[in-house]
Amino acid sequence: MIVIHLNAFLFACGHHRAAWRHPQSTVERLGDITYWEELARIAERGKLDAIFFADGHTPQNVADGPRWFFEPLTLLAALSRATTHIGLISTVSSTFFTPFHAARMLASLDHMSHGRIGWNVVTSMFDAEARNHGFEAMPDHDWRYARAEEFIAATLALWDSWADDAVLNDRAGAWAMPERVVPVNHRGEHFSVDGPLTVPRMPQGHPVLFQAGASEQGRDLAARRAEAIYAVAWDLEVAQDYRRDILRRVREASRSDAVPVMPGLVTYVASTEDEARAKQRELDELLPAATSLRQLASFIGQDCSDWDLDAPVPDLPPLETFTGPKGRYATILRIIESERPTLRGLLGRLAAGGGHCTMVGTPASIADRMEHWVRNGGADGFNLMPPSLPGSLEDFVDHVVPELQRRGLFRREYESATLRGHLGLTRPECRRG
Amino acid sequence: MIVIHLNAFLFACGHHRAAWRHPQSTVERLGDITYWEELARIAERGKLDAIFFADGHTPQNVADGPRWFFEPLTLLAALSRATTHIGLISTVSSTFFTPFHAARMLASLDHMSHGRIGWNVVTSMFDAEARNHGFEAMPDHDWRYARAEEFIAATLALWDSWADDAVLNDRAGAWAMPERVVPVNHRGEHFSVDGPLTVPRMPQGHPVLFQAGASEQGRDLAARRAEAIYAVAWDLEVAQDYRRDILRRVREASRSDAVPVMPGLVTYVASTEDEARAKQRELDELLPAATSLRQLASFIGQDCSDWDLDAPVPDLPPLETFTGPKGRYATILRIIESERPTLRGLLGRLAAGGGHCTMVGTPASIADRMEHWVRNGGADGFNLMPPSLPGSLEDFVDHVVPELQRRGLFRREYESATLRGHLGLTRPECRRG
Ligand SMILES: Cc1cc2nc3c(=O)[nH]c(=O)nc-3n(C[C@H](O)[C@H](O)[C@H](O)COP(=O)(O)O)c2cc1C
Ligand SMILES: Cc1cc2nc3c(=O)[nH]c(=O)nc-3n(C[C@H](O)[C@H](O)[C@H](O)COP(=O)(O)O)c2cc1C
Repeated sequence: MIVIHLNAFLFACGHHRAAWRHPQSTVERLGDITYWEELARIAERGKLDAIFFADGHTPQNVADGPRWFFEPLTLLAALSRATTHIGLISTVSSTFFTPFHAARMLASLDHMSHGRIGWNVVTSMFDAEARNHGFEAMPDHDWRYARAEEFIAATLALWDSWADDAVLNDRAGAWAMPERVVPVNHRGEHFSVDGPLTVPRMPQGHPVLFQAGASEQGRDLAARRAEAIYAVAWDLEVAQDYRRDILRRVREASRSDAVPVMPGLVTYVASTEDEARAKQRELDELLPAATSLRQLASFIGQDCSDWDLDAPVPDLPPLETFTGPKGRYATILRIIESERPTLRGLLGRLAAGGGHCTMVGTPASIADRMEHWVRNGGADGFNLMPPSLPGSLEDFVDHVVPELQRRGLFRREYESATLRGHLGLTRPECRRG
Repeated sequence: MIVIHLNAFLFACGHHRAAWRHPQSTVERLGDITYWEELARIAERGKLDAIFFADGHTPQNVADGPRWFFEPLTLLAALSRATTHIGLISTVSSTFFTPFHAARMLASLDHMSHGRIGWNVVTSMFDAEARNHGFEAMPDHDWRYARAEEFIAATLALWDSWADDAVLNDRAGAWAMPERVVPVNHRGEHFSVDGPLTVPRMPQGHPVLFQAGASEQGRDLAARRAEAIYAVAWDLEVAQDYRRDILRRVREASRSDAVPVMPGLVTYVASTEDEARAKQRELDELLPAATSLRQLASFIGQDCSDWDLDAPVPDLPPLETFTGPKGRYATILRIIESERPTLRGLLGRLAAGGGHCTMVGTPASIADRMEHWVRNGGADGFNLMPPSLPGSLEDFVDHVVPELQRRGLFRREYESATLRGHLGLTRPECRRG
């Protein structure tokens, strides 16, 4: 039987950049912890594997819209008390944290949540972030991935510094066995950390490692270390290529474990295709045209301020002749080719999930496409990116999830109480003590 | 009217080092978040100003007993959702953290808790801790205090990087005003951080700064920066001296704000003096004699393994002739002189709160002594250090608090919903934007 994994990627008022501008948006509630508790409970009502938070270390352009509010580790702690089964995944940057802090906080959370924590390892992106952490600019890609590699090794060692049976609670003797709480004595290029950790071995052994690297180094790191992977795939073919490549690298790393690959998925769900498209259009129409057109102009290298918003996008020069950054340009060409959108439609697609897959339609038609991806090697599950919150998440949970359940593709009840359990991953052995 | 501030310093199974050995101890529940929620709710039932967590970055001797389990910032996040009024204070080390992470997590918590967060700034102590954070050994005292000074300055600047009115939520315009979310561009000896923070201005303006330094540098830092102070005072005279000294330094720093000083206080409460002493003895008897005697031998510089546990402690040489560390030796001499304890009694006193004041007695006699300290300039409140948890905390909350309330010395209901409000501190102005 195929089991689809579903992860809800929660972001501000939703992944559509204009979602916060909607009259019913939740923008006033971003600093209200009950807003995030409600979202987590909606996801848990849908029996999703996990909720996930991205993270960045600069507010970016605050005029354009909200990105961050709560710091994600403190946020997960609160959400662990508002939920009972769903997995809780936070991004932690290996460029900006150090292993002892990260290992300790994630370990603390794994205990608090009774084994529901995941760690999305990222190397971060922006100079403005780096300048909040003592760097002059973002260190280069190779350096960041070398540090990530060492960061993970040191963190895993700290997580193994307490044997599973180290704590005795022997009132007449020892609280814990000193010989089972051992130093790690990590000495590397980037870190020097003795250990042991202050936190005993965790319910899951250790939190589940996620990775979402796209570059060669990112894919290799994911293949060697990740227990589950977030992907970016515009369509099934891209998804298949990516998954095939990653699974090959996993095999080459001599790993025998299944590593679920979850591409991002933006959905607009309604009871008819027309209604679903209307939901999408409603958000697209909230985009401030001038700002979006300026951004598009920078992506395609030509002025488009006098193009008609409600007419089809004019033909663009082929990829080969384009001299700017090719990735985004290729995405734009593919959107134009496959969807023949109006200019406003194109701006909307770029404003919600960018290079990720978007599905617009009825619960059945979306379930069809999801099933098709999973049956054809494109995905082991999806990283849901609701364009607006809570609306798009509720639409998915209340309408697509039951459709997937009817097809036997998704759990009706949680069969486990840990994130590892939901993902079908085994509990890692403690490699010391 | 005098108002006493009360802070509950929660630590493992209690501050008595043998508390975890009691048959009814909570040692099995240290990794169970509901244990800490129950403690927080007991303190809130008593209308206490705050609960407080110390922090260390090494497990120390795990055979002797538990010290740490949850990491305190993630712990506070969870507790903020289990309580509604009580303040929540965490230790964060300025030696091991960096300003951006600390500022951000504490800011996140202040929003989550609706303005109930405090930060106890410490410079940390042990080489084993330092070796978990890339140091070869603990950096020296001057370096640590210079870093603490700069750490606080950078953190305060980050907390002021968003103006109080920066967020607009203007759906047709800007989410926030860019000119009110400004960089801090801190460039110092220890840190370089651009800002702005990712978190908008906090309910309390910023979390309340606590300090507990005892050295010259510690007192100066406290006087310049702390909004409330934890003290160590064996008796009223020491407390008066310390408080007088600190308040003089506060004035010299040209500060006009009241800075509450809270000495630590260990209490054994029962309905008769005898019963209270029996409670103390019950914990003392749980101490493994051999370990305690070895420790005492190291404190006093002479073997005591063949002394009678139930006889009075023999006379010790005067302080002047002692060549080891004088602080602890002086404490030991004072305990012997003022209490004439048995050897077991002395070991017990050292095992619970060390140099802090201990009060054993009925609710009325303890309230008498607390009132005496406060009326005579020894304290503005107390940092309660329950020897066993939850028992000693419940005894205090259920019996001493009502006695203080009857005397008009302590609030009957919360009159504020923020930690600043409980402590009578004003909300700091934003010094930018
Ligand atoms: C679903 C998803 C979530 C991501 N979340 C974050 C994030 O929270 N913070 C971050 O700095 N990068 C994030 N990234 C970026 C990647 O992890 C990675 O850093 C980026 O793709 C560049 O990696 P590469 O150099 O290997 O291509 C995310 C990527 C994906 C696909
Ligand atoms: C009530 C109280 C709580 C403290 N908590 C901590 C703590 O959690 N972590 C820590 O490293 N030091 C802690 N300390 C130690 C002091 O903050 C300070 O570092 C120590 O007294 C040495 O400072 P000094 O060098 O100024 O004397 C605490 C002290 C007191 C009185």
